[in-house]
Amino acid sequence: VSDSFRYRRRVQFAETDLAGIVHFSWMFRYMEEAEHALWRAAGLSVSAPGAAIVWPRVSATFDYRNPLHFEDEFDVIVRVDEVTRRSVRFAFVLERGDTPIGSGTLTATSASRNGDGVLRSVAVPEEMVERLRAAAIG
Amino acid sequence: VSDSFRYRRRVQFAETDLAGIVHFSWMFRYMEEAEHALWRAAGLSVSAPGAAIVWPRVSATFDYRNPLHFEDEFDVIVRVDEVTRRSVRFAFVLERGDTPIGSGTLTATSASRNGDGVLRSVAVPEEMVERLRAAAIG
Amino acid sequence: VSDSFRYRRRVQFAETDLAGIVHFSWMFRYMEEAEHALWRAAGLSVSAPGAAIVWPRVSATFDYRNPLHFEDEFDVIVRVDEVTRRSVRFAFVLERGDTPIGSGTLTATSASRNGDGVLRSVAVPEEMVERLRAAAIG
Amino acid sequence: VSDSFRYRRRVQFAETDLAGIVHFSWMFRYMEEAEHALWRAAGLSVSAPGAAIVWPRVSATFDYRNPLHFEDEFDVIVRVDEVTRRSVRFAFVLERGDTPIGSGTLTATSASRNGDGVLRSVAVPEEMVERLRAAAIG
Repeated sequence: VSDSFRYRRRVQFAETDLAGIVHFSWMFRYMEEAEHALWRAAGLSVSAPGAAIVWPRVSATFDYRNPLHFEDEFDVIVRVDEVTRRSVRFAFVLERGDTPIGSGTLTATSASRNGDGVLRSVAVPEEMVERLRAAAIG
Repeated sequence: VSDSFRYRRRVQFAETDLAGIVHFSWMFRYMEEAEHALWRAAGLSVSAPGAAIVWPRVSATFDYRNPLHFEDEFDVIVRVDEVTRRSVRFAFVLERGDTPIGSGTLTATSASRNGDGVLRSVAVPEEMVERLRAAAIG
Repeated sequence: VSDSFRYRRRVQFAETDLAGIVHFSWMFRYMEEAEHALWRAAGLSVSAPGAAIVWPRVSATFDYRNPLHFEDEFDVIVRVDEVTRRSVRFAFVLERGDTPIGSGTLTATSASRNGDGVLRSVAVPEEMVERLRAAAIG
Repeated sequence: VSDSFRYRRRVQFAETDLAGIVHFSWMFRYMEEAEHALWRAAGLSVSAPGAAIVWPRVSATFDYRNPLHFEDEFDVIVRVDEVTRRSVRFAFVLERGDTPIGSGTLTATSASRNGDGVLRSVAVPEEMVERLRAAAIG
């Protein structure tokens, strides 16, 4: 997929559960790790100290196809999927070689933190989105 | 909600992140905890030793409304939402007093483990679903 | 044990690993949960918003005796073990009924956060320790 | 350190807590990840499917020196520290560049699982230890 960023990861022991496979909640952390690696590839950080804009989540989804096991190496493929005035949706595919593991989305909204810590919705900065898209294309 | 089971939980320190709120991935664990408490309320266990049927996840979703903070007490309200021949979907609402935290779903499929550990899809046992529904109504 | 506070907990699915038992790292979170419950029992919070004093960890230990399994109910028994001018050590015993699970310690130092966020060691407030000890005795 | 294996890691967002630093419990998972990477470097797996010997933990310790922050890159340096007839202790040093993060130990005992799943202590296989030591020297 040409508009996507690829993040490689290995399954750690603590991520498995008594069913002998990766616990389903870890897919959401794998997606987030890949998204944050994309921000770094774009020369950015999702959470730079003192940043003017923060990115609270508004939605997260995952559809499971095949399980992951201890020490599996797999890829998380991430791209900028949909951008609105107030939100960015990232889309993800997880695969281990030719085996599909599943696919999901994370949607974040852009907000600024005012003096007393309360979040206020702000417009998504276009330049940031352009840098993320450019980094995804690689 | 009269067809729902209510699970009370307190936010633990390790569940927060540097944004000062509960990390978004924990909502999926909170939902699972509530679902498993519903199984127990029905006199069942989602994972009894030697059980004939296991319940791998096929889908998970969550929509975020308001953040949770350290030591917050909140409720996870769970009900049996939709049952097909091969799957059960649980629906969840999280709330802290009158404040909505968000809502989500977990969908599991029924499978049996044969001799060599491979999972094979089987029909959802109707009696189990009836017991879960009865326990949710309370 | 008369100088101790007892915190009851149930093992959740996500806390198990592929060996079919609770992952060893969870004992540290169980200990922390019990310690924080003791703070609450003393009418305090280990991390109140805007608190003058914070409690970074300096040491953590655990010795394992018997494993915990999914849905086990167990107790974490915590007491204030040793207090120096700069640190408080909490001691913990975990047990499931008559079965010892293990024992451990968490040692925290008292610090204040100055304007630029840097931590500076400060004397342990005696009154806080007295309240924790009193709450542990119950 | 010439008898040690070095494992590089980056701090992920979900590993931080509301204090803005990595939660103390993660040091135990970082140590385990490095230990398991050492097993792989030795051509082994700590948990191969159907393995005759398993390695339950008997003790874990960590002393904290400096905090880790989001996106920090750091090293976990691991070596085989002490071997007895029944146990292996791994020793760890964590550092971010020249900054010491802390040091710790994980001690595992060797056991075999009999037909009904009960663990029985067995002698540590000398050849395994030799391979781990050789891999650590690199």
